[in-house]
Amino acid sequence: MGNYSIVTIEREYASGGKEIGQKVADALQIPLYNNEIVSMAAQKLHVDPEYVAHIEEQMTGSMLFNLAMSATSQLGIGTGRSVSDQLFRAECEVIQNFAQQGSCVIVGRCADHVLRNRKDCLNVFIYADLKTRKERAIRQYGVDPSYVESTIKKNDKRRSAYYNVNTSLAWGKKEFYDLCLNSGQLGVDSCVSAILTLFQGT
Amino acid sequence: MGNYSIVTIEREYASGGKEIGQKVADALQIPLYNNEIVSMAAQKLHVDPEYVAHIEEQMTGSMLFNLAMSATSQLGIGTGRSVSDQLFRAECEVIQNFAQQGSCVIVGRCADHVLRNRKDCLNVFIYADLKTRKERAIRQYGVDPSYVESTIKKNDKRRSAYYNVNTSLAWGKKEFYDLCLNSGQLGVDSCVSAILTLFQGT
Repeated sequence: MGNYSIVTIEREYASGGKEIGQKVADALQIPLYNNEIVSMAAQKLHVDPEYVAHIEEQMTGSMLFNLAMSATSQLGIGTGRSVSDQLFRAECEVIQNFAQQGSCVIVGRCADHVLRNRKDCLNVFIYADLKTRKERAIRQYGVDPSYVESTIKKNDKRRSAYYNVNTSLAWGKKEFYDLCLNSGQLGVDSCVSAILTLFQGT
Repeated sequence: MGNYSIVTIEREYASGGKEIGQKVADALQIPLYNNEIVSMAAQKLHVDPEYVAHIEEQMTGSMLFNLAMSATSQLGIGTGRSVSDQLFRAECEVIQNFAQQGSCVIVGRCADHVLRNRKDCLNVFIYADLKTRKERAIRQYGVDPSYVESTIKKNDKRRSAYYNVNTSLAWGKKEFYDLCLNSGQLGVDSCVSAILTLFQGT
């Protein structure tokens, strides 16, 4: 084993980041966390995970300001913090707990930033050209070809806004990652191999 | 062997890109080309390599316009093209010839862009945090600590201008590369391992 125990993966929509993460987790026989983070954060806040999912669904740049300025009362906690802030704090705790439990792969949720003080995180960004992402979105996610480009743009915008609001940093800057892999050029399996090589220190 | 026969490496100043390239070339027992490209381009243009080096030394954003608009006569070719344009065309030919001769590593000179129509190029960008680069510049290149930050900025600016003028593209955008490696976080040897893993298709 190398110097790492955690892999964080941030990714453009339909670049195959989650599939790459799952293959890495399978190869290393360690858990992968993605949607669990949202559902456990919802549990912490005693709200319906569907409500959280709805809020996140709306998280585009234009909506974040509205969310931040209102709706606090819907969580019924009365801390004076915005919904998105409370959610992110809960998600941070969940991520930190997962990381403390042992080796794992964490996909999304600004995990690279949340765990930035740990030295044992291999932080990866996955990206791909639009053509590859369109094909994946249509073939693997069942997106209607008529809306595929707008779906990609909308999801990237949401991820970018989520990252920016919660970290005050720009999304996808290579400087925040140990390696950035172009899955459109390399293919999923080569991305997995590169991550495993670095993680295992071979 | 994988699907690649060429590795191109673009890199921030003092990020260890050339050392990484040399170690990859040594491991694969293939040649590395860097300064040879400039000297062979000078030979093609029948000018002194030192004159070319001087022109390149001046290649910052502010100087490029002047270079582009003048000095054509100094090459004595009279094509009406700017010095930088003639130089780049000659360098492109040299790079393409090297690539045709067989497997190799090419460092710098927009090789990723020059060889963009070949499918057998693994295009890599190496970057690192400022602290790591300062240490390398002082320790390995003998840069005076008082000037190390300005030296790094000046060299990055020159590389950026060279790339931008010759390709009309922004320097260091991850989208132009198959993988981007943070040598400050990963270390030189891990970067070499990741490149070899992808090149060899293991």
